Amino acid sequence: MKIGNVPYRSVWVDQQDGWSVHIFDQTRLPWELDILRLTERDQVARAIVTMQVRGAPLIGAVAAYGLALALRADAGDAAMERDAALLAGTRPTAINLRWAIERMLARLRPLPAAERVAAAYDEAGWICDEDAAQNEAIGRHGLRLIQEIAARRGADGVVNILTHCNAGWIATVDWGTALAPIYMAHDAGLKVHVWVDETRPRNQGASLTAWELGSHGVPHTVVADNAGGHLMQHGMVDMVIVGTDRVTRSGDVANKIGTYLKALAAHDNDVPFWVALPSTTIDWRVQDGLAEIPIEERGGAEVTTITGRTADGRIETVQLTPPGSGAANPAFDVTPARLVTGLITERGCCDASQDGLAGLFPEQA
Amino acid sequence: MKIGNVPYRSVWVDQQDGWSVHIFDQTRLPWELDILRLTERDQVARAIVTMQVRGAPLIGAVAAYGLALALRADAGDAAMERDAALLAGTRPTAINLRWAIERMLARLRPLPAAERVAAAYDEAGWICDEDAAQNEAIGRHGLRLIQEIAARRGADGVVNILTHCNAGWIATVDWGTALAPIYMAHDAGLKVHVWVDETRPRNQGASLTAWELGSHGVPHTVVADNAGGHLMQHGMVDMVIVGTDRVTRSGDVANKIGTYLKALAAHDNDVPFWVALPSTTIDWRVQDGLAEIPIEERGGAEVTTITGRTADGRIETVQLTPPGSGAANPAFDVTPARLVTGLITERGCCDASQDGLAGLFPEQA
Repeated sequence: MKIGNVPYRSVWVDQQDGWSVHIFDQTRLPWELDILRLTERDQVARAIVTMQVRGAPLIGAVAAYGLALALRADAGDAAMERDAALLAGTRPTAINLRWAIERMLARLRPLPAAERVAAAYDEAGWICDEDAAQNEAIGRHGLRLIQEIAARRGADGVVNILTHCNAGWIATVDWGTALAPIYMAHDAGLKVHVWVDETRPRNQGASLTAWELGSHGVPHTVVADNAGGHLMQHGMVDMVIVGTDRVTRSGDVANKIGTYLKALAAHDNDVPFWVALPSTTIDWRVQDGLAEIPIEERGGAEVTTITGRTADGRIETVQLTPPGSGAANPAFDVTPARLVTGLITERGCCDASQDGLAGLFPEQA
Repeated sequence: MKIGNVPYRSVWVDQQDGWSVHIFDQTRLPWELDILRLTERDQVARAIVTMQVRGAPLIGAVAAYGLALALRADAGDAAMERDAALLAGTRPTAINLRWAIERMLARLRPLPAAERVAAAYDEAGWICDEDAAQNEAIGRHGLRLIQEIAARRGADGVVNILTHCNAGWIATVDWGTALAPIYMAHDAGLKVHVWVDETRPRNQGASLTAWELGSHGVPHTVVADNAGGHLMQHGMVDMVIVGTDRVTRSGDVANKIGTYLKALAAHDNDVPFWVALPSTTIDWRVQDGLAEIPIEERGGAEVTTITGRTADGRIETVQLTPPGSGAANPAFDVTPARLVTGLITERGCCDASQDGLAGLFPEQA
């Protein structure tokens, strides 16, 4: 997508040297557009752990390039397996990370060491291109859902869509998942307005989603995470679209902490609650999301402190809690399939159920 | 309650001059314990509007003293009615404010102007004393609910209680509403642990509730507002207790924005959801909370910026959103009675229903 009319992806190989990898430092957004150059495995691992890159699809793509960078140092079997395991272990909840590393290994293991670097860059490139293409397809399928609501609204009606966290283009290689339908609807001339959940504790909504939508010109309003239920009670939300870090074969949805609360409110107010995902996000080995998906517990400092910009332009981190008050910080929750209206995938929309998913992905059923 | 072993109330008349009124500037907590001296009506109105005092019961008590201060300037009928209306209009959602002003007027209107100042101080004092006594009674009734859970837990079990916003002693004259049972349980030697919702956008949980509980020595952990559903899904919450700004005669509960989301999660996970209130918080004229209770819309800057303390001790306000991204800020929501396990009042506990309330307050039915 575009930043000030310049098209970007969220990760790309340097055009000059042909091997180093560029990302945006997402911990500096929305205040600075800081492009990082990654040249080795540990830099990539650190970028994922510190969330300079985040978003399930993007983490997978960047980790794939991380393996390519690692192979430049040592392309032997032992090193490759070690580096792959290290990169796969940087974040526990998103399934795309493991999927991307396994896909890389499946291609690389049969090759002689001397051919692995070139093959790794090629495969990582395919992962990126396929992610962008899948998200574009998700956008097309989701667009139809928005068009249906817009048609009921009539010419002057605005379609109000609530989203949680950031499942936009900078959470993926391009287009985004939850935001892809919204970008397409906006570009198609539909009147859309997005309620952007702030998404504490890391504020990906207030900082990243608001920045993305603003950069693209999509009308939006930031709200505290607490506000969504009230907005739905008063008919101010026509649909919810969120992304996901892992979907089970039965349609349970792991996503950013707080997603479950919005799904409950949507259900209580008959607001459609859609989850957008590339099929790489589906963990076919897992049935019961609540029991089986590991939930990352992050540091309490993400809750007790927050970073922003002062009126005179300095970036400051401030403490919000009294000394001596600790914090817990589960990073994701699981929304049971019963609360999900449907899934928007690159192959189309389906029920959040084993039958629904099997209908679209019969090869996995 | 105590701060460093010194007992305080949240509002009191100066012991020396006998007429000026003291409050804590709650916008400076938890960083500074800043005691303000109020001497005139407009100072009181400003303290309420800027939330130097907040919490439904405390607002009512401070507004009562505000009327006493106003009468010192002019105790005539016209001035009294004008000043009462001005003070009653400082916040729209809490019913206690209107109740306190009406109680003051009911006592003051029949009196000659010369007797009104002394009577106003006397009546405001009664409002304070009754609030403290009511909250102590709420604490006793709520304590029994905690004792029942503790008994099921056995000697080593901890009772985990989640609360939203601040309904503690600094939201009232003393004891608090939602926190009164918790203080009593802790003082009685029960093992209680409190999950403190941060409560964006104004962070009353992270700043005020955490500060109160820490000052009193009650174990607690701050969590992002998004986390409560996840905690309940995993059996980590035994009960929820919140305060309220207004309860309808049918048991609908207006409280800080986000309360409704926690009530939905409690209902979905069979976690008891209790609301603690003095009966002054009940609006017997209102039946349908969603349709009839006005919800205050506060400035968007409360969402787009946040104030905290830097590592080197400066209090800074930082912006969280990109320039050009606006925010909406509904300050309260309404939890339908069907999601409320029960109400804890000064007369005991009851169902959140017309019959339940009529049973405890037959004179209002």
